Order: sequence, then structure tokens, then C-alpha cells
Amino acid sequence: MFITFEGIEGSGKSTALELLAAHLESRGLSVCRTREPGGCQLGQALRHLLLDARTVSLASRAELFLFLADRAQHVAEVILPSLEEGEIVLCDRYMDSTLVYQGAGRGMDPDRLRMLNEQAACGMIPDMTLLFDLPVSEGLARAGRRNREEGTIISEGRFEAESMAFHHRVREGYLALAAEEPDRIFLVDASQHPDDVLLQCVSVVERKLQEYGRLA
Amino acid sequence: MFITFEGIEGSGKSTALELLAAHLESRGLSVCRTREPGGCQLGQALRHLLLDARTVSLASRAELFLFLADRAQHVAEVILPSLEEGEIVLCDRYMDSTLVYQGAGRGMDPDRLRMLNEQAACGMIPDMTLLFDLPVSEGLARAGRRNREEGTIISEGRFEAESMAFHHRVREGYLALAAEEPDRIFLVDASQHPDDVLLQCVSVVERKLQEYGRLA
Repeated sequence: MFITFEGIEGSGKSTALELLAAHLESRGLSVCRTREPGGCQLGQALRHLLLDARTVSLASRAELFLFLADRAQHVAEVILPSLEEGEIVLCDRYMDSTLVYQGAGRGMDPDRLRMLNEQAACGMIPDMTLLFDLPVSEGLARAGRRNREEGTIISEGRFEAESMAFHHRVREGYLALAAEEPDRIFLVDASQHPDDVLLQCVSVVERKLQEYGRLA
Repeated sequence: MFITFEGIEGSGKSTALELLAAHLESRGLSVCRTREPGGCQLGQALRHLLLDARTVSLASRAELFLFLADRAQHVAEVILPSLEEGEIVLCDRYMDSTLVYQGAGRGMDPDRLRMLNEQAACGMIPDMTLLFDLPVSEGLARAGRRNREEGTIISEGRFEAESMAFHHRVREGYLALAAEEPDRIFLVDASQHPDDVLLQCVSVVERKLQEYGRLA
């Protein structure tokens, strides 16, 4: 059972992932929490290059291939082994991020991106994807507050610094994907209180786990 | 005018590149010396990850995408701008290395590699390629001596540590490419004395420069 968490910056997906993981563990399930970029040792090094606001001159194609390198290593080193152990893998960002950030956001050809995604992911498609949706202005305001509070140098700064138009294209790109793949992608109203966001996640994930026979 | 230097470890291509660059400059030509991986700032960081013998657990696909990320950035940041300035670009390793190391060496599908190469290189094919050929045992012995003399931590250690069978597949892969593309790839007998190797390079490169109207 492989579940990915997607959404614009500040949509609360990382918080929801942590809360959902704790909830599933309280029900006796074994969970692997991971993320892209940065879910493996190689990814940590690449995460620096990709997200640091100081990396300004990265060519779009180089950026794309770095994300794909991280994905290829992450699938081989973390996702596949965890699934083979019977764990429920919760992953913060995955192939949909490539489609919307490099595709809708940067204007790269979506068919080419799908093909490259397949190569990098070794055919490992998520069983379900939670898409955390909220207005761009609200998401960026949250992300800004978080960065100031954490005082981290390495945030998602390079992407947050993109134009408003970029972020709107990303949000629209996500919504278009959700419309194309309603069986895999579940829309979560991320503008609600975190407790209510968690309830939405628990509801769709538990239903899927019952379908898969992982919960009574 | 974009010239790439290819060959197995220890084939003397880096030395020949330096000598050829000096020779062309002595004839009044402007030369850009570069290499993959590591021809740009991003590439320097990736070169560490890719060549360090301590990076042992890299998945083949992750390795491939890191080389492609380096190539995409290198083309955008170094190769294209230098060619636009009218420089002769001499590049130590390029897309043929991907075809033979990841293809012949690691067994990845050559058609897929060609397609990915094209994506990364933005269609930038070399005008000519010098292939430095010599027996594998001789190349590896030279590379071993060089590493001991330089005492460098970051050598081409990860690849040099591959099996003899791997290096034989790489050499055969290179020779097969040269047979497929005789108009682009020129075989250099790298087992000769460095002075004679340089003479071979000067001869084919000057002939090509005359064809292109860059030398009288």
C-alpha cells in the first residue's frame, strides 16, 4: 500500500502525513514515512541543490533529472523494500509533483515527463494519492510563516520564490490531474482546521485499507 | 566546433585533450576545455557522488539520471555559451560515455539511453569524437598508477573498481559505436607514446577544422 501526499507549498501535507502515520500506527499498522526529494542519503544531498534558494541558475532540464535521480534511488532503496516488508508507505511528494511543477509550472511537455517519470519510478505507481488543495495565497502565507519559525536555511525556498503565476499553474495542474485520475487521486480540502483535514484523510485511507483487506 | 574525447579509464584522453588545446591555441584558436561529469558548479557536486568509490549503493537508474542532470546543466551553462562565443569546445567524456557505461557496461536498453541522452543534451551532438582505444589491462594499469601518484580521494574510483568483464564490455561498446558512426567517431591508437597520440589527434582535428573553414 503506497500512498502519496501532494499539494502546493503550505498546503499542510507534511503535517497531515505525520498525523495520519501516528493514527495508522495506533491501529496496529506498520508505517514508513518518507518524502521526495530527500527520502534517502543521495536525496539528502540533492535536496540541498534542488530546494536551496541560493541555487539560482539551475537549468530546467538539470532540475528535472536531479528529481528523477532522487526518485530512482528512493524507489530502489526505500519504497520497494518497505512495501516488500508489508509496510504502508506514506510519501510526501512523488511523481505528480514532477508533472505539475516541471510540466504545468515550467512548461515542459507532459508526455515526455510521464515517460521520464516511468523510467525513474520503475513502474511504481501510488495506490492512492491525497491532494491537499487550498488557495495559493493561503498556502504561501503558511509556508512563509513556517520558514520564519523554523529559521531553516534549507527550506523549499527555491520554489516558494517562484512567481504567483507559477504557483497558480501548479495548483491548476494538480486539479487537472485529479480530474483525469479520480480513482487514484483524492481531493482534500486543506483550507480547513488541521483536525478536520486529518479526518478527511483518515476517512479515505481507511476505506482503501478495508478494500485492500488491511483493516477490518 | 564541438569535439568530445572518449575512451576507457587510463586511455590518456585527458592528457591528450590538454596537449591538443595548447596546440590549437598556439595556432591562434580560442579553446574551451571542459569535462563530464564536473564541467559546471552543479557537476562538481555530482562528480563527488558519481565517482567516489565510497558511493557504493547507487541504483543504476539514479546514477544515469545524475549523469544526465550534469549534462543538461553543462550544455546550458558551458557548452552552448562557449560555442556561441566561437570557441572550440573540447569535452572529456559526453553522451557516448552514457551509451557505453550505462548501456554496454550496466546492460540498460540502448534505445532508451539514446532518447534520454537527447533530452539531456538538448540535441547538442558533437561535430567529432576522438575515441582513445587501448587494451583494458593497459588502461587500468595506467589509471591505477595515476591515482596512486595523485593521492586523490575523488578519482574515477567507483568505475575503476568495476569488474574486468565490465571494462571489456565498455571497450567493445565504444568500438561498436565507432563502427556505427565512422563519420563522427575517429579511432585513436592510445597504446602509442603520448607524442604519437597527440600527432594522431592533431591530424584528424586540423583536417576537420579546415573542412569547417576554421584553419587555412
